[in-house]
Amino acid sequence: MRDLPIGVFDSGVGGLTVLRTLMAALPLENTVYLGDTARVPYGTRSHDVVTRYALLSGRYLAAQRIKLLVIACNTVSAHSLPALAAALPIPVLGVIEPGARSAAARTRGGTIVVLGTPSTIASGAYQKALGRLSPLSRLVSRACPLFVPLAEEGWVDGEVPRLVAERYLGDLRRSGADTVLLGCTHYPLLSRAIAEVMGPQVALVDSAEATAEAALRLLAGRSLLRAGPAKAVHRTLCTDLPDRFRGVAERFLGRPIGTVELVDLV
Amino acid sequence: MRDLPIGVFDSGVGGLTVLRTLMAALPLENTVYLGDTARVPYGTRSHDVVTRYALLSGRYLAAQRIKLLVIACNTVSAHSLPALAAALPIPVLGVIEPGARSAAARTRGGTIVVLGTPSTIASGAYQKALGRLSPLSRLVSRACPLFVPLAEEGWVDGEVPRLVAERYLGDLRRSGADTVLLGCTHYPLLSRAIAEVMGPQVALVDSAEATAEAALRLLAGRSLLRAGPAKAVHRTLCTDLPDRFRGVAERFLGRPIGTVELVDLV
Repeated sequence: MRDLPIGVFDSGVGGLTVLRTLMAALPLENTVYLGDTARVPYGTRSHDVVTRYALLSGRYLAAQRIKLLVIACNTVSAHSLPALAAALPIPVLGVIEPGARSAAARTRGGTIVVLGTPSTIASGAYQKALGRLSPLSRLVSRACPLFVPLAEEGWVDGEVPRLVAERYLGDLRRSGADTVLLGCTHYPLLSRAIAEVMGPQVALVDSAEATAEAALRLLAGRSLLRAGPAKAVHRTLCTDLPDRFRGVAERFLGRPIGTVELVDLV
Repeated sequence: MRDLPIGVFDSGVGGLTVLRTLMAALPLENTVYLGDTARVPYGTRSHDVVTRYALLSGRYLAAQRIKLLVIACNTVSAHSLPALAAALPIPVLGVIEPGARSAAARTRGGTIVVLGTPSTIASGAYQKALGRLSPLSRLVSRACPLFVPLAEEGWVDGEVPRLVAERYLGDLRRSGADTVLLGCTHYPLLSRAIAEVMGPQVALVDSAEATAEAALRLLAGRSLLRAGPAKAVHRTLCTDLPDRFRGVAERFLGRPIGTVELVDLV
């Protein structure tokens, strides 16, 4: 059981920012990553469609024999965690609760700004978790749909992302914010533009580190941490265009990715 | 047969720019429009996945009893016209051939620039059609992935679309272009930004009018034009988020759209 990989699921390449942190925090763990590039993006879809797609991929990963499923996608974590946990015979961990915990720990009494896809923001999942974890904080949430295509296009520096961030977030400079929760796996790539618009007094929080810590605790608690000695093996799967995936993926993972396997989920 | 609607298929809302022109050219025709919003966008997917999705929607529309299927989506027209024509018992008309014909008629010996989604450009469909219809023209093709999310977000004027267009197209000002073929249904919404970057000597051509003319000729040739007298009926279907669809759709159609029906294509 200890040698089974951790499954990491995302709608596309964005979850590689979570995989990257997971690999750094748990360097001995085998992993298998699935990006559903045939159906990406999820962030502009409904609760029901997101959950239908998430179950398709979640069942596929579970059938690969994994010891834990990490949902790297904020939109899936926001909508489909209960459905996945009910359908799969393994523990399922999302990014919403760890991310909210992280933001709640970081704020110093100012406003917490939650940024995410339209679907994540509409779900209210972060708002609900923060209402529980940081009940005295003022919350502002904002959907930023163009951040995902900008990050995928690799336009993360310069005038265009700064102008787009200004248009989405400019009015929040006067919101008393001290914490911005990056509630989408793509948004860390746009950190510089977001930080420039929000100002230096604001801390940017992303869910990846907190999620890796939660994975570590969960596996340790069940005596499922892998000890080695063989080097960890990392597989990468996607459902369409593996070559395009690899090109974008290396920017998100921060290192070469090797072979990307195409899997056909209909 | 004459009273059967014309089916119009698109990956999402973009094809409404084609429906709009079709309704103006053929005001007596009943129509049924299907936007596959559960799987949009198609423009970043592979040939096989685009065709799989197109067959799913094409079969659904054919089962609604239509007399003609118009493929408003450039990406589907570029990849899947033969597969759809083979699978369906009705005539199928795409936008590539009419659009290329229109650009070939417009150029005065200068370069023709073809803009489209990554998938449409990679298919080579416009390049192939123009090589046949305008063999002496120089062709330049360019994928502009951010134009679709910009148009859907409604950011069609001002600094952001102008800067994005400049980044994609600025180097083409010196290409000797006299014609720009807008090879994606979303791009007409960004006409102003594209025209500003390319300069006043360049004509922008979109496939919608030529496609409506082709539909008129095809129906007339088969004695299938509807004569009235009852007012034409227009149905609009989509596969996810009908409320969001209606909000964006009215900007593309240029008039109120009424009820949007949700259909479940799995």
